[in-house]
Amino acid sequence: MKYPRGFYSFGKNIGIKNKTPDFAVIYSSAVCNAAAVFTKNNYPGAPVIVGKEHIKNGKLQAIVINSKNANVATGEEGIKNAKETCLVLGESLGIEAENILPSSTGVIGVRLPLEKIVGACKSAREDLKEGNLEEVAAAIMTTDTKIKIASKTIQVGDREGMIYGMAKGAGMIEPNMATMLCYILTDFSIKNDKFNNFYYQMLKKSVDKSFNCISIDSDTSTSDTVVLMSNGLAGEIEENIFQEALDAICIELAKKVAADGEGATKLIQVDIVEARDEIQARKIGKSVINSPLVKTAIYGADPNWGRLIMAIGKVFDEPISYASLSVQIGSIDVKDATVETLTAITEYLKSTNEVKIKISLQQGNYEMSFWGCDLTEGYVKENAYYTS
Amino acid sequence: MKYPRGFYSFGKNIGIKNKTPDFAVIYSSAVCNAAAVFTKNNYPGAPVIVGKEHIKNGKLQAIVINSKNANVATGEEGIKNAKETCLVLGESLGIEAENILPSSTGVIGVRLPLEKIVGACKSAREDLKEGNLEEVAAAIMTTDTKIKIASKTIQVGDREGMIYGMAKGAGMIEPNMATMLCYILTDFSIKNDKFNNFYYQMLKKSVDKSFNCISIDSDTSTSDTVVLMSNGLAGEIEENIFQEALDAICIELAKKVAADGEGATKLIQVDIVEARDEIQARKIGKSVINSPLVKTAIYGADPNWGRLIMAIGKVFDEPISYASLSVQIGSIDVKDATVETLTAITEYLKSTNEVKIKISLQQGNYEMSFWGCDLTEGYVKENAYYTS
Repeated sequence: MKYPRGFYSFGKNIGIKNKTPDFAVIYSSAVCNAAAVFTKNNYPGAPVIVGKEHIKNGKLQAIVINSKNANVATGEEGIKNAKETCLVLGESLGIEAENILPSSTGVIGVRLPLEKIVGACKSAREDLKEGNLEEVAAAIMTTDTKIKIASKTIQVGDREGMIYGMAKGAGMIEPNMATMLCYILTDFSIKNDKFNNFYYQMLKKSVDKSFNCISIDSDTSTSDTVVLMSNGLAGEIEENIFQEALDAICIELAKKVAADGEGATKLIQVDIVEARDEIQARKIGKSVINSPLVKTAIYGADPNWGRLIMAIGKVFDEPISYASLSVQIGSIDVKDATVETLTAITEYLKSTNEVKIKISLQQGNYEMSFWGCDLTEGYVKENAYYTS
Repeated sequence: MKYPRGFYSFGKNIGIKNKTPDFAVIYSSAVCNAAAVFTKNNYPGAPVIVGKEHIKNGKLQAIVINSKNANVATGEEGIKNAKETCLVLGESLGIEAENILPSSTGVIGVRLPLEKIVGACKSAREDLKEGNLEEVAAAIMTTDTKIKIASKTIQVGDREGMIYGMAKGAGMIEPNMATMLCYILTDFSIKNDKFNNFYYQMLKKSVDKSFNCISIDSDTSTSDTVVLMSNGLAGEIEENIFQEALDAICIELAKKVAADGEGATKLIQVDIVEARDEIQARKIGKSVINSPLVKTAIYGADPNWGRLIMAIGKVFDEPISYASLSVQIGSIDVKDATVETLTAITEYLKSTNEVKIKISLQQGNYEMSFWGCDLTEGYVKENAYYTS
């Protein structure tokens, strides 16, 4: 199985970018149970504002997306444009406008080219192809260099269904709720009698240990959105089996986003172990994964382990005694490093594109992983002239 | 007047660096009233630990400094080495070891080359010259490209005295108490009957609006130290006159540190106005001055003003309605920018090495300024191979 049943989509260029795809639609033949988490930035984009309204009843049937323009800081007109987009697409597909989630990514503070988008919405019906989701994953890219997809097929008795997720990231990535854009589709419906909003609960749980554990540059986007859509065409699935698969897909996508950070040459994974609790693990993990001096040292394969100590120590409100702290780069203990140790660290850093750092706090049993990337000249170049 | 009376100093190479000066001593002929503020990093260097002990009684007569090695994360031996340095220098100068503040800056996690330092301490007496403080300002540099000095001569009746400050910065700079290293010397003594620790109170006040308002890369050094020494050889001065001069010197040095950030091509000043209070101003000012996307856009003269909105909006706990927010780059209002505005922003950014950003919150009357620098390929290069 390549796609979950009943999902149709396309991605194409409609002239917002020069040539590469910049517009996409995802459509489900059946109305979906759905949930979404959005950016906590105080100036969310117009699509986030409208999307929050449309997701309120827990139902979605389509997502309409453009890249290159985020429709953020565009005032009342931006909101009108996002609503108009849903209206026209709803008419074209014969579905409720309120069951469509609008989504935009790109430059902040520029008006949406509404005519181009409205035109593309009008002809959307003819463009839709069954499955075809790679086209969407490509159309949502901005400075991403790779499409990011993760999927899992699950057998439930004699039925087979799947979860299919796609994401885009690249820069302005320190999600706090969600990452830039991520859509997760499934043809399972989830068995649960307990909560009203359990799709949201499950999504939030997965997001907290995936997208909320990555940072490319400590900047939180105004467009962050993660959506889960379930059309149930493959029947029911147990909640715990689904949660486990959803966790795995979110973590895989989050790692792909971190590894493809702007200018990045290496994925960095920081495992915080023996933490007191999630709060402590998160503060220290984020401090390390965001430290420009840690990130540049890893880029240069410089065995400058003192910077890890600095980054752990600058979490002023979580003091860990130096004696109880242990730090490993790869499998190398770095404290009191000898010349041989330093050489081994350099060799390790040169040998891998997935650098692992393990920090043990001896404060309890909580474990959590964080992902980020190195800081390179490429990041600076990419962002010095982004709109020019 | 070039120097405050009664201060003697030297800076020279003792073989920690290859050729450039790496060791310095400042000595006052009279015991000084003194105060210091230190880093809040949870793993302060050995010199910070020993320095805190030595400053407790509010007296100092000398400072001994080395660059290239920070003596941090060096355990008990590091502390012993810092004490030994003070002991030997005390003997050489015929003063109390407890009246000497040790200070080190450079790589973290490497043992101090004690023999070289002890040797230099033994011959320190012969090396001291009256004034001569530029030699110290040069010897404390690591990746700094310029020496940083600020001074002010003040006439009190028929007496003249002065305040003379020097600092070093460059990287790992988001001071939280103080910056990397800064020494401020005066031959005035300050009139005050109220507090016991008023030298500290005055220094803290100045530091809070100078060094605690700058950030080069959001990383807080383990060695941050600002010291004030007053030997009183120019007689007494009124507290308010002294405070004003001390503020001005700290701000001038802080700006010099920010402007000479690693790889920096531009000083960035962010003025937060109409804030509710210091807390709000500080959170928003620091978020903007630390945003890699704001910093890279300024480097590239890219009129990407949406990133300023993003950086203000990611201070989740200080929401400011978009309507009440106003933002200026130079004197250009950026909200709802037209094509002409964007061109004007680019021209402004290209025309100056001191970029000014003004953010008005309409929440109250509190004003505060912050300083930082752009993020360039130079920063990445400098830090990718720092120890190698």
